[in-house]
This record gives sequence, structure tokens and C-alpha cells, in this order.
Amino acid sequence: MNRTIEVMKSHRCIRSFEDKDIPDAIIDELVAVAQAAPNSINGQQISLVIVRDKEKKRRIAEIAGGQTWIAQAPLFILFVADFYKAKLAADKVGRPLIIPESVEATIAVAIDAGICLGNVIAAAESLDLGIVPIGGIRNDPAAMIELMNLPEYTFPINGLCVGYPADRSRQKPRMPVAAFRHDEVYDPAKLAALIDEYDALMEPYLKSVGRGHEVNWSTNTINFYSFVYFPQVYPVMKLQGFTNDK
Amino acid sequence: MNRTIEVMKSHRCIRSFEDKDIPDAIIDELVAVAQAAPNSINGQQISLVIVRDKEKKRRIAEIAGGQTWIAQAPLFILFVADFYKAKLAADKVGRPLIIPESVEATIAVAIDAGICLGNVIAAAESLDLGIVPIGGIRNDPAAMIELMNLPEYTFPINGLCVGYPADRSRQKPRMPVAAFRHDEVYDPAKLAALIDEYDALMEPYLKSVGRGHEVNWSTNTINFYSFVYFPQVYPVMKLQGFTNDK
Repeated sequence: MNRTIEVMKSHRCIRSFEDKDIPDAIIDELVAVAQAAPNSINGQQISLVIVRDKEKKRRIAEIAGGQTWIAQAPLFILFVADFYKAKLAADKVGRPLIIPESVEATIAVAIDAGICLGNVIAAAESLDLGIVPIGGIRNDPAAMIELMNLPEYTFPINGLCVGYPADRSRQKPRMPVAAFRHDEVYDPAKLAALIDEYDALMEPYLKSVGRGHEVNWSTNTINFYSFVYFPQVYPVMKLQGFTNDK
Repeated sequence: MNRTIEVMKSHRCIRSFEDKDIPDAIIDELVAVAQAAPNSINGQQISLVIVRDKEKKRRIAEIAGGQTWIAQAPLFILFVADFYKAKLAADKVGRPLIIPESVEATIAVAIDAGICLGNVIAAAESLDLGIVPIGGIRNDPAAMIELMNLPEYTFPINGLCVGYPADRSRQKPRMPVAAFRHDEVYDPAKLAALIDEYDALMEPYLKSVGRGHEVNWSTNTINFYSFVYFPQVYPVMKLQGFTNDK
């Protein structure tokens, strides 16, 4: 329908980057689209840390469980869930800051981070840059907090690698759209057959890209979801003031 | 730099819509960009419910605390945090689904919802549609679950109104970019002065748009954040299987 939509529909994650820096003017634009995103109650509870330092990126790659593309990408952006600014506001007006104790706050700030991410991803891809989001920083959030000097009421919620693509990976097939879209009401009854259809599609696809060991969508998803793969998130959030018990 | 970036930088929320339906072909494109968004571990844990039914939108406006623009907009999209598909996968492969018990799952799925939202917002605005995100559905999540027929391991995480703008509201000023962007490390020391600067900017702005009672950013933010404004999120999530205790 237009280029903005085409860019988003063509999205694929990039895990190999050229050794080429991103101009400052482009980084400024990525920051600008992130800040222009709508946010909950105008609380502006997201902050970015722009990382270009090679040694720091190498350390983040390690924290994220050995994701070498973090070290390779010229730019890593840390998205910070940030109620520290609200804490300063609370101190300024002399009232308590309660919201970080709630699951509602975790949801609201994570959605805000996601919208910012969506904007930065679309902007980067519209400029022919490639990206990959990095949830893996939540593998060791305490290490990220130390590395990034994050104060109370903040949490390193997600990362993003940005750079010039050095691979031409294919777009991964998604579930049939009927498994994603419902009209007027959610229809649980249609899903099992659509998942079977998708599993049958993914088996040859995964083999063709050398990931046959993942078997299919159901098996790969449950390999992640039959345990808590980042067990440090909950205890470290508590230490930062996000108690998630209200 | 290009139109995609200009669209995102020009974002403002719209709360008044023309009485004009959105063509099916556009809705299909909004769904397509949402589904093309990157997502955590390819779990595809977001689903959409497309709502055009007038009576249903009227009810959602009520649930969200009287947000009349939901009834007025021709299209409301519900973003569902959806591990029900993973539950079907777990049953299929005969292993337990543990992840929804974790705060990590709440974060991962909320970020995914946010990225989808970001894509739909950018696509809609690139087509000169207006939007406003609706966190207010979390005011009474149990009512949304009933209205939308949501099964176990799902949660109504956010909404979005889409329509043809009938207002020409101004873009709200953001904090100075230095309060949003840090380089290499987070710098807490610079923030108090920047918040003072922003509060001083917001006072006359809020008066000029008839919202002088909000006073400034610090006061308005703490009016929301000195208590848990959606107290039903935590207990209703638990009932749906998101215990948030791991």
C-alpha cells in the first residue's frame, strides 16, 4: 500500500553485520522516533542507552548468553524500563511512588518499550539497516544493571542490535493469519488445526535452514516454555523496586 | 529523512473520529504488519481481535472508564497476550507449560504486544488514519475476558482505536531528549534539572490546552503513580494462569 507498510511486512531479523559505523545523524533519528512514540499517561517511563563502545558490546554479548552479533553490530540500544524519573517527580511533589510495585506497571512499561522498539525497528529498516531485538539481556539483568549504571526503579528490559546487513536470510513463515486474527470474539476452537498446519509447514522449513533439531513450532516453543528460561528477572526486578506483588 | 520516519516523528493521539468506516483491505494490512513484527522465540504469543460492532465498542468504552472515543472510532483492535496457543503446543507434545507463571513471560509478551502496536500505529498513520492506544481496558480485565471469550493463558493487554481523525490536536511536548537518551552509561545525575525544565515548559502548555489542573509533568505523573490505578490486573492475571510469582 505504501513503502512504510512494505518495510514492516518485509521484516526479518539480521544476525550478521558489516563492519561499518552508523552515522550520528541516523542514530539521532532513531532516538527521535523512539521518543515520539505514544506512552502510558505521558509518564515517559522509557529511556535509551546508546552503546557503540566495542568492549561494552562484547560484554553485553556475553551477558546475553554468547550472542556474537551484539559485539559485531555497530550499534546496540538498551531500552530501560525507567520509573526513576517518576521517583524524582515523587520526591519533588512530596508523595510516595507506589506504581512500580504492581504487575500493571510491568505491563505498561513493557508495552511502552515495545512501541519504542517497533518505531526504531521500522525507522532502521526504512533506511535499509538490519536489526535483531535482544531479550537475552534479561539472562543476567544484575550484570546489565551494573554495566549500565542503572539506578533504583529502572530495569534493562530489552536490547536491539542495529547495523548494515551482511546476511540475506529468508523471512521465517508465520502461523496462518487465522491463528493470529479473530473477529469480534476470540475463537479458541479453530486453533489446534491451524497449529497442526503450521507445524507441518515448519518441519521442512527448519530442515532447509539447518535447524531441523527444532522439529516444528510446537516442539521448539515448548522447549523454551516448559521452564522459566530467565529465572533472574523476578528476583532482580524486586531488588530494583519492581515487586510485582500488587 | 524519509516519510516513514516523518510519520512516526509527527505522531499525536486522536480522540475524535469521523463517522466513516475503514475499508477491509486496510484492516488486512494493519493485521499483516502486526503479524510481521519480530516476537520472542517465535512463540507468536500475540493475537488480535478486530472489533467493528457498535454495541461491543460501546461496552469497551464503558469498561475502559468512559472513553467515548472507543465507541466513536470505526475500528477497535484488542491485543491479546496469548499463551493459549503455547498451551495447545504443550498438550500436543505432552509437556508442561510453565512460562506463564513468570514475570519474564509478562515482560516478553507485553514487549511483543508493544512492537505489534508500534507497527499498526505507524502503518495507520502512514495512511493518514489516527489512533489512540487504550491501556484502559485493564481497568476491568475480567469484563474484557468475558466480552471477548478469552480462554486460559490469555490476557487483554492493550487496545487501539483507529479511525479518520476529526480533531487537529497539537503534538504534546516531550522531555528534553537528554532525559531520554544516555550514551554508553545511564547518567542519573543529569535528570532532576531536566525534569524541572520540562515541568516549567508543561505548565503553560497544559493551561493553553485547558488542562491546567494537571499542573505539570511531575504532579500529573504522581497523581497516577502514588497508587495502583488498575488494581484488578494482578488478581485477574492470576486467574488466567499468569501467576507472576517466578
